[in-house]
Amino acid sequence: MTEGSAVVNLDDIKRAADLLAGQVVRTPVHQSGPLSELTGADLYLKLETLQHTGSFKDRGAFVKLSALSDEQKRNGVIAMSAGNHAQGVAYHAKRLGIPATIVMPEGTPFTKVARTQAHGARVMLHGDNINAAEPYAQEVAKAENLTFVHPYADPHIVAGQGTIALELLEDVPDLDTIVVPIGGGGVIAGIATAAKALNPRIQIIGVEAALYPSMYQIVHGMEPQMGGETIAEGIAVKTPGEINIEATRRLVDDILLVDEPALESAVQTMLETGKIITEGAGAAPLAAVLTHGGRFAGKKVALVVCGSNIDSRILAGILMRGMVRAHRLARIRVLIKDAPGVLAKVSDHIGQTGGNIVEVQHQRMFYDVSVKNAELDIMVETRDYDHVQAVLTRLNAAGFKSKLLSDLAE
Amino acid sequence: MTEGSAVVNLDDIKRAADLLAGQVVRTPVHQSGPLSELTGADLYLKLETLQHTGSFKDRGAFVKLSALSDEQKRNGVIAMSAGNHAQGVAYHAKRLGIPATIVMPEGTPFTKVARTQAHGARVMLHGDNINAAEPYAQEVAKAENLTFVHPYADPHIVAGQGTIALELLEDVPDLDTIVVPIGGGGVIAGIATAAKALNPRIQIIGVEAALYPSMYQIVHGMEPQMGGETIAEGIAVKTPGEINIEATRRLVDDILLVDEPALESAVQTMLETGKIITEGAGAAPLAAVLTHGGRFAGKKVALVVCGSNIDSRILAGILMRGMVRAHRLARIRVLIKDAPGVLAKVSDHIGQTGGNIVEVQHQRMFYDVSVKNAELDIMVETRDYDHVQAVLTRLNAAGFKSKLLSDLAE
Repeated sequence: MTEGSAVVNLDDIKRAADLLAGQVVRTPVHQSGPLSELTGADLYLKLETLQHTGSFKDRGAFVKLSALSDEQKRNGVIAMSAGNHAQGVAYHAKRLGIPATIVMPEGTPFTKVARTQAHGARVMLHGDNINAAEPYAQEVAKAENLTFVHPYADPHIVAGQGTIALELLEDVPDLDTIVVPIGGGGVIAGIATAAKALNPRIQIIGVEAALYPSMYQIVHGMEPQMGGETIAEGIAVKTPGEINIEATRRLVDDILLVDEPALESAVQTMLETGKIITEGAGAAPLAAVLTHGGRFAGKKVALVVCGSNIDSRILAGILMRGMVRAHRLARIRVLIKDAPGVLAKVSDHIGQTGGNIVEVQHQRMFYDVSVKNAELDIMVETRDYDHVQAVLTRLNAAGFKSKLLSDLAE
Repeated sequence: MTEGSAVVNLDDIKRAADLLAGQVVRTPVHQSGPLSELTGADLYLKLETLQHTGSFKDRGAFVKLSALSDEQKRNGVIAMSAGNHAQGVAYHAKRLGIPATIVMPEGTPFTKVARTQAHGARVMLHGDNINAAEPYAQEVAKAENLTFVHPYADPHIVAGQGTIALELLEDVPDLDTIVVPIGGGGVIAGIATAAKALNPRIQIIGVEAALYPSMYQIVHGMEPQMGGETIAEGIAVKTPGEINIEATRRLVDDILLVDEPALESAVQTMLETGKIITEGAGAAPLAAVLTHGGRFAGKKVALVVCGSNIDSRILAGILMRGMVRAHRLARIRVLIKDAPGVLAKVSDHIGQTGGNIVEVQHQRMFYDVSVKNAELDIMVETRDYDHVQAVLTRLNAAGFKSKLLSDLAE
């Protein structure tokens, strides 16, 4: 495998695996009974979530950094990334004694900057987004004689990520299908190369966020059209690598798109049913299986759960929104006479139906309410839709005009 | 091993392991680099969180149910539990075609009742708490000729839970220490029995919630004194099993107590740093290592991460509270003149310091505020304590009297 080579083969990936032994986590493959029951497929989760920096990026980063010449190692490396690639490069550069610089967009969340700095890297904030950061990183690389470590358009990186397939097929040799998130295409190129060489009949299915279907559009000869806010930041990539496009055309059986509600719901299902923490991109394979269920039914399907670096506030929000969608949490507005003892009566009615009040806001100053009235906004823990309706029915029957405020599900 | 026998030995546990092969998840042991760096110990996590029903209870339940006579199986079983034991018994009873009844306290959360019913069990709600449920369950058992399946005071259950130690020592033979949560004592009795038989020098350390130190008090000859609200419900047990007390006295090296803040913080650290979902009891071993760090430093330590069944609302709350404690989220109250354009100015000052506003509440009706003024409560995403102070300093310098409302940490 030379720097200019466009083709990564099984031998390259096997050599990468030898390099990685003892250097990155040999992640477990977990056969999930609950998720299999839910989807009708026999699901095996490849838990790249448990890599040291929380994603598969450790693999490619270590392989790439190890392949540098002594002089390159002394001079140091530079990478641009707001996320997992930054952590992977920074962590392994530190371990190998290589100075690392990471260019991040200016709006990068504090925790990601801090975590990268904690790995000893120099962080430079530049540009509005990751695309703006690349030319700057290339400039700094040239000026300071640093080796640029691309996140995916590099055969060493592709070979490193491909080792995931070797481990998967070692643990579950008779897999029918591997479902792989696609961002820049490094992971799917590596996995497809290794898996198809070992078993030509295995199906390799890619998944992209519907807002960033770059590889899908390229493979289907469509005009590139993408953008928007996605929780699957890790795979929101506009320009996949050339070598990965080539491998995808040649080896990948299909690419599925998943929309934001499916991604959000998959993060929640991975956590509540699968008991696995994932970031948006990590939940994309499950989102694909939940969205396109039929084609996976009854098959042995591996999901590459590529990362677990999700912001705690975002995760907390997803959990709460998931409860609202499932009617396990409801926000109810009750019109009351503004008089002593009324809250006690309302609370009692809700309690009698088995609802558990977790928050109350008492509003006395709304424009559409008479000055003698007030509005109570009550958050109630409920069982399901019917239970919410029972609470409303009881309150209305008792003369407290009530309505459901939260209604994401309908 | 007979029903009346008080002693479980290594052979019993090995037989239990043979029974369990292919029937429960052979859970992975994950060496956590990030948690090891954090604690200074070499930490191995036994992920019982990934059992089918989300906890180790699957093991004991299957062993116990398999040991029943054909007649007992036909008549059915009864158990009392608000939590993991209920799921374990219900799930495996269904798989084995045994009718199951679960008695739960009346206040049991909806999701737990529903999940138990989803496994096909009959659920009876009775009494205020789990202690009140037991006599009732015994009564129903007698009336309906059902076999009572105790959650921990049963040698079959103990042998089943003990198989955790066989797997741990198979995967990491040179462990120095195993840290085990103690509720009724079934897990630690089984693990200590197996582990000490295989390696008499291994240290077995128990962990209890400081609010429910029942085994600690018994072993130290103290008056039983306990109670209160704990997030480690799974180990909030007032009366450990006799056979487990005996095994603990004989084989367990020490029992550590962990308070509620340590448990809550450990759930958060398991998730954010370890990338593992745990319930309160599951995080108790990490809480012990974080609280009593010195004794574990430099040692190979296995943590029995016993379960992952945590309510999503509780988990979301822990994540948000953790962010507040770390000053990554701050609630700031700003006194403003109630006039157009003021919110824009305040927002701009906060933005200029790099703070990200995530929520605003505009209050115009507080008793201690002049009618021409108003109060803004602003939730801001911040980097750390110094950053929060910088935001406050800037606002105050600009004439907006501001103070920090959230201050769990000091």
